Amino acid sequence: MPHLVILYSGNLDSRSDMSLLCRRLADTLLEQRDEAGKAVFPPGGTRVLAYPAPHFAISDGGAAGRAAGGDGDYGFAYLNLRMGRNRSEAVQQAVGAALASVAKAHFEPLMATMHMGVTLQIDVGAEVFDAKHSSLHPLFNRTT
Amino acid sequence: MPHLVILYSGNLDSRSDMSLLCRRLADTLLEQRDEAGKAVFPPGGTRVLAYPAPHFAISDGGAAGRAAGGDGDYGFAYLNLRMGRNRSEAVQQAVGAALASVAKAHFEPLMATMHMGVTLQIDVGAEVFDAKHSSLHPLFNRTT
Amino acid sequence: MPHLVILYSGNLDSRSDMSLLCRRLADTLLEQRDEAGKAVFPPGGTRVLAYPAPHFAISDGGAAGRAAGGDGDYGFAYLNLRMGRNRSEAVQQAVGAALASVAKAHFEPLMATMHMGVTLQIDVGAEVFDAKHSSLHPLFNRTT
Repeated sequence: MPHLVILYSGNLDSRSDMSLLCRRLADTLLEQRDEAGKAVFPPGGTRVLAYPAPHFAISDGGAAGRAAGGDGDYGFAYLNLRMGRNRSEAVQQAVGAALASVAKAHFEPLMATMHMGVTLQIDVGAEVFDAKHSSLHPLFNRTT
Repeated sequence: MPHLVILYSGNLDSRSDMSLLCRRLADTLLEQRDEAGKAVFPPGGTRVLAYPAPHFAISDGGAAGRAAGGDGDYGFAYLNLRMGRNRSEAVQQAVGAALASVAKAHFEPLMATMHMGVTLQIDVGAEVFDAKHSSLHPLFNRTT
Repeated sequence: MPHLVILYSGNLDSRSDMSLLCRRLADTLLEQRDEAGKAVFPPGGTRVLAYPAPHFAISDGGAAGRAAGGDGDYGFAYLNLRMGRNRSEAVQQAVGAALASVAKAHFEPLMATMHMGVTLQIDVGAEVFDAKHSSLHPLFNRTT
Protein backbone atom coordinates (compact mmCIF):
# COMPACT_ATOMS: atom_id res chain seq x y z
CA MET A 1 0.00 0.00 0.00
CA PRO A 2 1.47 3.27 -1.06
CA HIS A 3 -0.69 6.29 -0.68
CA LEU A 4 0.08 9.84 -1.49
CA VAL A 5 -1.83 12.61 0.26
CA ILE A 6 -1.63 16.18 -0.98
CA LEU A 7 -2.51 18.96 1.45
CA TYR A 8 -2.65 22.36 -0.20
CA SER A 9 -3.91 25.89 0.20
CA GLY A 10 -7.42 26.15 -1.25
CA ASN A 11 -6.48 29.10 -3.45
CA LEU A 12 -4.71 26.68 -5.82
CA ASP A 13 -7.97 25.04 -6.88
CA SER A 14 -8.88 27.79 -9.34
CA ARG A 15 -5.36 27.93 -10.76
CA SER A 16 -4.23 24.34 -11.09
CA ASP A 17 -5.89 21.10 -12.16
CA MET A 18 -5.38 19.08 -9.01
CA SER A 19 -7.27 16.03 -10.30
CA LEU A 20 -4.83 15.92 -13.20
CA LEU A 21 -1.92 16.13 -10.78
CA CYS A 22 -3.35 13.19 -8.84
CA ARG A 23 -3.57 11.13 -12.01
CA ARG A 24 -0.04 12.02 -13.10
CA LEU A 25 1.35 11.08 -9.71
CA ALA A 26 -0.59 7.81 -9.62
CA ASP A 27 0.72 6.93 -13.09
CA THR A 28 4.24 7.72 -11.88
CA LEU A 29 3.81 5.42 -8.89
CA LEU A 30 2.57 2.65 -11.18
CA GLU A 31 5.62 3.06 -13.44
CA GLN A 32 8.19 2.59 -10.67
CA ARG A 33 10.40 -0.47 -10.96
CA ASP A 34 12.83 -1.90 -8.43
CA GLU A 35 16.38 -3.18 -9.00
CA ALA A 36 14.96 -6.45 -10.36
CA GLY A 37 12.63 -4.70 -12.79
CA LYS A 38 9.57 -5.56 -10.74
CA ALA A 39 6.77 -3.05 -10.11
CA VAL A 40 7.43 -1.30 -6.79
CA PHE A 41 3.75 -0.74 -6.03
CA PRO A 42 0.78 -3.02 -6.64
CA PRO A 43 -1.76 -1.44 -9.04
CA GLY A 44 -4.69 -2.24 -6.78
CA GLY A 45 -3.05 -0.45 -3.88
CA THR A 46 -1.99 2.79 -5.52
CA ARG A 47 -3.96 5.94 -4.66
CA VAL A 48 -3.50 9.66 -4.51
CA LEU A 49 -5.82 11.94 -2.56
CA ALA A 50 -5.71 15.77 -2.66
CA TYR A 51 -7.25 18.08 -0.07
CA PRO A 52 -7.66 21.84 -0.48
CA ALA A 53 -7.56 23.62 2.88
CA PRO A 54 -10.39 26.16 3.18
CA HIS A 55 -8.42 27.97 5.91
CA PHE A 56 -4.69 28.59 5.75
CA ALA A 57 -1.93 31.04 6.56
CA ILE A 58 1.35 31.08 4.69
CA SER A 59 4.53 32.91 5.58
CA ASP A 60 4.06 36.62 6.34
CA GLY A 61 0.58 36.66 4.80
CA GLY A 62 1.56 38.53 1.64
CA ALA A 63 3.64 41.59 2.58
CA ALA A 64 6.89 40.42 1.01
CA GLY A 65 5.07 39.22 -2.09
CA ARG A 66 3.39 42.59 -2.59
CA ALA A 67 6.68 44.39 -1.96
CA ALA A 68 8.15 42.26 -4.76
CA GLY A 69 5.38 43.31 -7.15
CA GLY A 70 3.10 40.28 -6.70
CA ASP A 71 -0.45 40.24 -5.40
CA GLY A 72 0.54 38.77 -2.03
CA ASP A 73 -1.56 35.67 -2.56
CA TYR A 74 0.74 32.82 -1.58
CA GLY A 75 0.22 29.14 -2.30
CA PHE A 76 1.46 25.93 -0.80
CA ALA A 77 1.24 22.24 -1.61
CA TYR A 78 2.55 19.46 0.58
CA LEU A 79 2.82 16.00 -0.95
CA ASN A 80 3.35 13.12 1.43
CA LEU A 81 3.86 9.57 0.29
CA ARG A 82 3.56 6.82 2.86
CA MET A 83 5.08 3.57 1.70
CA GLY A 84 5.82 0.21 3.29
CA ARG A 85 9.00 -0.78 5.06
CA ASN A 86 10.25 -3.41 2.63
CA ARG A 87 11.88 -1.28 -0.09
CA SER A 88 15.54 -0.37 -0.52
CA GLU A 89 16.83 3.13 0.03
CA ALA A 90 17.64 3.32 -3.67
CA VAL A 91 14.02 2.61 -4.52
CA GLN A 92 12.82 5.22 -2.04
CA GLN A 93 15.10 7.85 -3.59
CA ALA A 94 14.11 6.94 -7.15
CA VAL A 95 10.41 7.11 -6.30
CA GLY A 96 10.88 10.46 -4.58
CA ALA A 97 12.84 11.91 -7.49
CA ALA A 98 10.22 10.74 -10.01
CA LEU A 99 7.31 12.20 -8.01
CA ALA A 100 9.14 15.46 -7.31
CA SER A 101 9.87 15.83 -11.00
CA VAL A 102 6.19 15.39 -11.88
CA ALA A 103 5.08 17.85 -9.19
CA LYS A 104 7.66 20.40 -10.29
CA ALA A 105 6.62 20.16 -13.93
CA HIS A 106 2.95 20.43 -12.96
CA PHE A 107 3.36 23.56 -10.87
CA GLU A 108 6.08 25.27 -12.92
CA PRO A 109 3.74 27.46 -14.99
CA LEU A 110 1.91 28.55 -11.84
CA MET A 111 5.12 29.24 -9.93
CA ALA A 112 6.16 31.67 -12.62
CA THR A 113 3.25 33.94 -11.70
CA MET A 114 2.53 33.09 -8.05
CA HIS A 115 4.69 32.91 -4.97
CA MET A 116 4.25 29.36 -3.82
CA GLY A 117 6.05 26.42 -2.30
CA VAL A 118 5.89 22.72 -3.08
CA THR A 119 7.28 20.15 -0.67
CA LEU A 120 7.38 16.41 -1.23
CA GLN A 121 8.29 14.01 1.54
CA ILE A 122 8.27 10.25 1.77
CA ASP A 123 7.61 8.51 5.06
CA VAL A 124 8.07 4.83 5.69
CA GLY A 125 5.07 3.63 7.66
CA ALA A 126 5.78 2.42 11.19
CA GLU A 127 2.29 1.04 11.76
CA VAL A 128 1.77 -1.46 14.58
CA PHE A 129 -1.39 -2.83 12.96
CA ASP A 130 -2.30 -3.14 9.32
CA ALA A 131 -5.46 -4.58 7.77
CA LYS A 132 -6.57 -4.51 4.17
CA HIS A 133 -9.85 -5.39 2.58
CA SER A 134 -10.17 -4.91 -1.15
CA SER A 135 -12.24 -5.67 -4.18
CA LEU A 136 -9.67 -3.83 -6.28
CA HIS A 137 -6.61 -6.05 -5.85
CA PRO A 138 -8.30 -9.09 -7.43
CA LEU A 139 -8.67 -7.11 -10.68
CA PHE A 140 -4.90 -7.21 -11.07
CA ASN A 141 -4.16 -10.67 -9.70
CA ARG A 142 -6.02 -12.70 -12.30
CA THR A 143 -4.19 -15.51 -13.93
CA THR A 144 -6.71 -16.02 -16.70
CA MET B 1 -5.99 10.62 23.20
CA PRO B 2 -6.83 8.26 20.43
CA HIS B 3 -8.00 9.77 17.22
CA LEU B 4 -9.01 8.06 14.07
CA VAL B 5 -8.80 9.94 10.79
CA ILE B 6 -10.44 8.58 7.66
CA LEU B 7 -9.20 9.80 4.30
CA TYR B 8 -11.34 8.58 1.42
CA SER B 9 -12.17 9.20 -2.19
CA GLY B 10 -15.05 11.67 -2.43
CA ASN B 11 -17.08 9.37 -4.66
CA LEU B 12 -17.95 7.29 -1.58
CA ASP B 13 -20.03 10.09 -0.06
CA SER B 14 -23.07 9.37 -2.19
CA ARG B 15 -22.79 5.62 -1.63
CA SER B 16 -21.95 5.17 2.02
CA ASP B 17 -23.05 6.85 5.26
CA MET B 18 -19.69 8.08 6.48
CA SER B 19 -21.12 9.82 9.56
CA LEU B 20 -22.56 6.50 10.62
CA LEU B 21 -19.18 4.84 10.10
CA CYS B 22 -17.58 7.49 12.32
CA ARG B 23 -20.10 6.80 15.06
CA ARG B 24 -19.66 3.04 14.82
CA LEU B 25 -15.89 3.35 15.02
CA ALA B 26 -16.08 5.76 17.98
CA ASP B 27 -18.39 3.34 19.80
CA THR B 28 -15.93 0.55 19.07
CA LEU B 29 -13.06 2.58 20.52
CA LEU B 30 -15.12 3.29 23.63
CA GLU B 31 -15.86 -0.42 24.09
CA GLN B 32 -12.20 -1.50 24.12
CA ARG B 33 -10.93 -2.99 27.36
CA ASP B 34 -7.36 -3.85 28.34
CA GLU B 35 -6.08 -7.00 30.06
CA ALA B 36 -7.31 -5.68 33.40
CA GLY B 37 -10.79 -4.92 32.09
CA LYS B 38 -10.19 -1.19 32.13
CA ALA B 39 -11.31 1.09 29.28
CA VAL B 40 -8.43 1.51 26.84
CA PHE B 41 -9.47 5.00 25.75
CA PRO B 42 -10.92 7.85 27.81
CA PRO B 43 -14.42 8.82 26.64
CA GLY B 44 -13.60 12.52 26.58
CA GLY B 45 -10.65 11.89 24.28
CA THR B 46 -12.20 9.64 21.66
CA ARG B 47 -12.88 11.13 18.23
CA VAL B 48 -13.22 10.06 14.64
CA LEU B 49 -12.93 12.49 11.72
CA ALA B 50 -13.65 11.62 8.08
CA TYR B 51 -12.48 13.59 5.05
CA PRO B 52 -13.69 13.04 1.49
CA ALA B 53 -11.00 13.98 -1.04
CA PRO B 54 -12.44 16.13 -3.85
CA HIS B 55 -9.50 15.13 -6.07
CA PHE B 56 -8.11 11.63 -6.27
CA ALA B 57 -6.63 9.00 -8.55
CA ILE B 58 -6.83 5.31 -7.81
CA SER B 59 -4.97 2.49 -9.47
CA ASP B 60 -5.18 2.49 -13.27
CA GLY B 61 -8.09 4.95 -13.29
CA GLY B 62 -10.74 2.42 -14.23
CA ALA B 63 -9.55 0.35 -17.19
CA ALA B 64 -9.30 -2.96 -15.36
CA GLY B 65 -12.62 -2.36 -13.62
CA ARG B 66 -14.39 -1.72 -16.90
CA ALA B 67 -12.72 -4.73 -18.47
CA ALA B 68 -14.15 -6.78 -15.59
CA GLY B 69 -17.66 -5.50 -16.27
CA GLY B 70 -17.73 -2.70 -13.71
CA ASP B 71 -18.13 1.03 -14.33
CA GLY B 72 -14.47 1.79 -13.64
CA ASP B 73 -15.31 4.06 -10.73
CA TYR B 74 -12.91 2.96 -8.00
CA GLY B 75 -13.13 3.86 -4.32
CA PHE B 76 -10.67 3.99 -1.48
CA ALA B 77 -10.82 4.57 2.26
CA TYR B 78 -7.82 4.83 4.53
CA LEU B 79 -8.42 4.65 8.27
CA ASN B 80 -5.58 5.72 10.51
CA LEU B 81 -5.73 5.47 14.27
CA ARG B 82 -3.12 7.32 16.26
CA MET B 83 -2.88 6.13 19.82
CA GLY B 84 -0.54 6.78 22.75
CA ARG B 85 2.59 4.84 23.58
CA ASN B 86 1.49 3.25 26.82
CA ARG B 87 -0.56 0.28 25.61
CA SER B 88 0.50 -3.34 25.19
CA GLU B 89 0.93 -4.95 21.81
CA ALA B 90 -2.01 -7.23 22.61
CA VAL B 91 -4.23 -4.20 23.15
CA GLN B 92 -3.03 -2.63 19.91
CA GLN B 93 -3.87 -5.79 17.99
CA ALA B 94 -7.27 -6.19 19.63
CA VAL B 95 -8.19 -2.57 18.90
CA GLY B 96 -7.08 -2.96 15.30
CA ALA B 97 -9.03 -6.16 14.80
CA ALA B 98 -12.19 -4.62 16.29
CA LEU B 99 -11.97 -1.50 14.11
CA ALA B 100 -11.14 -3.49 10.97
CA SER B 101 -14.13 -5.70 11.59
CA VAL B 102 -16.45 -2.69 11.88
CA ALA B 103 -15.01 -1.08 8.74
CA LYS B 104 -15.30 -4.33 6.81
CA ALA B 105 -18.92 -4.84 7.82
CA HIS B 106 -19.74 -1.23 6.98
CA PHE B 107 -18.27 -1.36 3.48
CA GLU B 108 -19.18 -4.94 2.60
CA PRO B 109 -22.44 -4.12 0.76
CA LEU B 110 -20.66 -1.43 -1.24
CA MET B 111 -17.70 -3.65 -2.05
CA ALA B 112 -20.05 -6.14 -3.65
CA THR B 113 -20.92 -3.60 -6.34
CA MET B 114 -17.87 -1.32 -6.49
CA HIS B 115 -14.18 -1.96 -6.87
CA MET B 116 -12.73 -0.41 -3.77
CA GLY B 117 -10.06 -0.82 -1.13
CA VAL B 118 -10.16 -0.27 2.61
CA THR B 119 -6.95 -0.02 4.63
CA LEU B 120 -6.74 0.40 8.39
CA GLN B 121 -3.47 1.17 10.12
CA ILE B 122 -2.59 2.02 13.68
CA ASP B 123 0.32 4.28 14.48
CA VAL B 124 1.74 4.85 17.91
CA GLY B 125 2.36 8.56 18.29
CA ALA B 126 6.00 9.61 18.67
CA GLU B 127 5.20 13.22 19.50
CA VAL B 128 7.91 15.32 21.16
CA PHE B 129 5.34 17.76 22.58
CA ASP B 130 1.79 17.14 23.69
CA ALA B 131 -0.70 19.61 25.16
CA LYS B 132 -4.38 19.12 25.86
CA HIS B 133 -7.07 21.59 26.80
CA SER B 134 -10.56 20.23 27.21
CA SER B 135 -14.02 20.99 28.51
CA LEU B 136 -15.05 17.48 27.49
CA HIS B 137 -12.93 15.36 29.82
CA PRO B 138 -14.52 16.82 32.99
CA LEU B 139 -17.90 15.44 31.83
CA PHE B 140 -16.56 11.93 32.40
CA ASN B 141 -14.41 12.51 35.46
CA ARG B 142 -17.11 13.56 37.87
CA THR B 143 -17.22 11.85 41.20
CA THR B 144 -20.65 13.14 42.12
CA MET C 1 9.85 23.40 6.59
CA PRO C 2 7.50 23.48 9.49
CA HIS C 3 3.89 22.93 8.73
CA LEU C 4 0.98 22.88 11.06
CA VAL C 5 -2.15 20.99 10.07
CA ILE C 6 -5.39 21.45 12.00
CA LEU C 7 -8.01 18.72 11.76
CA TYR C 8 -11.27 19.68 13.43
CA SER C 9 -14.93 18.83 13.67
CA GLY C 10 -16.84 20.81 11.05
CA ASN C 11 -19.28 22.17 13.62
CA LEU C 12 -16.58 24.61 14.78
CA ASP C 13 -16.66 26.54 11.50
CA SER C 14 -19.76 28.53 12.43
CA ARG C 15 -18.46 29.24 15.93
CA SER C 16 -14.80 30.06 15.54
CA ASP C 17 -12.75 32.03 13.02
CA MET C 18 -10.40 29.30 11.88
CA SER C 19 -8.65 31.48 9.28
CA LEU C 20 -7.76 33.85 12.10
CA LEU C 21 -6.43 30.96 14.15
CA CYS C 22 -4.24 29.91 11.21
CA ARG C 23 -2.82 33.42 10.95
CA ARG C 24 -2.15 33.67 14.69
CA LEU C 25 -0.38 30.33 14.70
CA ALA C 26 1.71 31.23 11.63
CA ASP C 27 2.72 34.50 13.29
CA THR C 28 3.68 32.57 16.41
CA LEU C 29 5.84 30.21 14.36
CA LEU C 30 7.53 33.17 12.71
CA GLU C 31 8.31 34.74 16.11
CA GLN C 32 10.12 31.71 17.50
CA ARG C 33 13.81 32.16 18.26
CA ASP C 34 16.40 29.56 19.19
CA GLU C 35 19.05 29.74 21.93
CA ALA C 36 21.20 31.94 19.71
CA GLY C 37 18.38 34.36 18.97
CA LYS C 38 18.00 33.09 15.42
CA ALA C 39 14.59 32.50 13.81
CA VAL C 40 13.66 28.85 14.30
CA PHE C 41 11.60 28.64 11.09
CA PRO C 42 12.26 30.22 7.69
CA PRO C 43 9.49 32.68 6.71
CA GLY C 44 9.14 31.19 3.24
CA GLY C 45 8.55 27.74 4.70
CA THR C 46 5.96 28.50 7.36
CA ARG C 47 2.36 27.42 6.70
CA VAL C 48 -0.74 26.47 8.58
CA LEU C 49 -3.60 24.54 6.99
CA ALA C 50 -6.97 23.88 8.66
CA TYR C 51 -9.46 21.21 7.61
CA PRO C 52 -13.04 20.94 8.90
CA ALA C 53 -14.25 17.34 8.89
CA PRO C 54 -17.73 17.05 7.36
CA HIS C 55 -18.21 13.72 9.15
CA PHE C 56 -17.14 13.09 12.71
CA ALA C 57 -18.03 11.33 15.95
CA ILE C 58 -16.79 12.53 19.32
CA SER C 59 -16.93 10.75 22.63
CA ASP C 60 -20.37 9.40 23.56
CA GLY C 61 -22.10 11.48 20.91
CA GLY C 62 -23.65 13.98 23.30
CA ALA C 63 -25.36 12.11 26.15
CA ALA C 64 -23.04 13.28 28.92
CA GLY C 65 -23.09 16.82 27.59
CA ARG C 66 -26.86 16.95 27.60
CA ALA C 67 -26.96 15.41 31.09
CA ALA C 68 -24.68 18.26 32.19
CA GLY C 69 -27.07 20.85 30.77
CA GLY C 70 -25.34 21.42 27.44
CA ASP C 71 -26.74 20.80 23.95
CA GLY C 72 -24.67 17.66 23.41
CA ASP C 73 -22.89 19.14 20.42
CA TYR C 74 -19.23 18.34 21.04
CA GLY C 75 -16.24 19.87 19.25
CA PHE C 76 -12.68 18.81 18.66
CA ALA C 77 -9.57 20.35 17.16
CA TYR C 78 -6.30 18.55 16.64
CA LEU C 79 -3.25 20.65 15.84
CA ASN C 80 -0.21 18.82 14.53
CA LEU C 81 3.08 20.53 13.83
CA ARG C 82 5.64 18.65 11.82
CA MET C 83 9.11 20.12 12.10
CA GLY C 84 12.57 19.12 10.99
CA ARG C 85 15.03 17.02 12.96
CA ASN C 86 17.69 19.65 13.58
CA ARG C 87 16.26 21.57 16.55
CA SER C 88 17.01 21.16 20.25
CA GLU C 89 14.53 19.71 22.67
CA ALA C 90 14.34 23.10 24.39
CA VAL C 91 13.29 24.72 21.11
CA GLN C 92 10.67 22.01 20.51
CA GLN C 93 9.18 22.60 23.96
CA ALA C 94 9.21 26.39 23.60
CA VAL C 95 7.51 26.19 20.20
CA GLY C 96 4.90 23.81 21.57
CA ALA C 97 4.18 25.98 24.60
CA ALA C 98 3.83 29.09 22.44
CA LEU C 99 1.44 27.40 19.98
CA ALA C 100 -0.60 25.76 22.75
CA SER C 101 -0.98 29.12 24.45
CA VAL C 102 -2.29 30.72 21.24
CA ALA C 103 -4.70 27.84 20.61
CA LYS C 104 -5.95 27.94 24.19
CA ALA C 105 -6.57 31.70 24.07
CA HIS C 106 -8.32 31.37 20.72
CA PHE C 107 -10.73 28.65 21.84
CA GLU C 108 -11.25 29.82 25.42
CA PRO C 109 -14.44 31.80 24.76
CA LEU C 110 -15.92 28.86 22.83
CA MET C 111 -14.92 26.32 25.48
CA ALA C 112 -16.90 28.27 28.03
CA THR C 113 -20.10 27.45 26.17
CA MET C 114 -19.31 24.22 24.30
CA HIS C 115 -17.90 20.90 25.38
CA MET C 116 -14.82 20.57 23.27
CA GLY C 117 -11.24 19.34 23.27
CA VAL C 118 -8.10 20.84 21.80
CA THR C 119 -4.96 18.77 21.38
CA LEU C 120 -1.63 20.03 20.08
CA GLN C 121 1.19 17.67 19.22
CA ILE C 122 4.56 18.17 17.61
CA ASP C 123 6.14 15.46 15.51
CA VAL C 124 9.68 15.48 14.26
CA GLY C 125 9.63 14.36 10.65
CA ALA C 126 11.36 11.07 9.90
CA GLU C 127 11.11 11.41 6.14
CA VAL C 128 13.38 9.27 3.99
CA PHE C 129 13.06 11.66 1.03
CA ASP C 130 12.58 15.40 1.00
CA ALA C 131 12.32 17.75 -1.98
CA LYS C 132 11.41 21.40 -2.04
CA HIS C 133 10.60 23.71 -4.90
CA SER C 134 9.67 27.26 -4.06
CA SER C 135 9.14 30.72 -5.45
CA LEU C 136 8.41 31.91 -1.90
CA HIS C 137 11.78 31.38 -0.23
CA PRO C 138 13.60 33.80 -2.57
CA LEU C 139 11.36 36.61 -1.28
CA PHE C 140 13.06 36.34 2.09
CA ASN C 141 16.60 35.54 1.00
CA ARG C 142 17.34 38.78 -0.84
CA THR C 143 20.52 40.55 0.03
CA THR C 144 19.60 43.78 -1.68
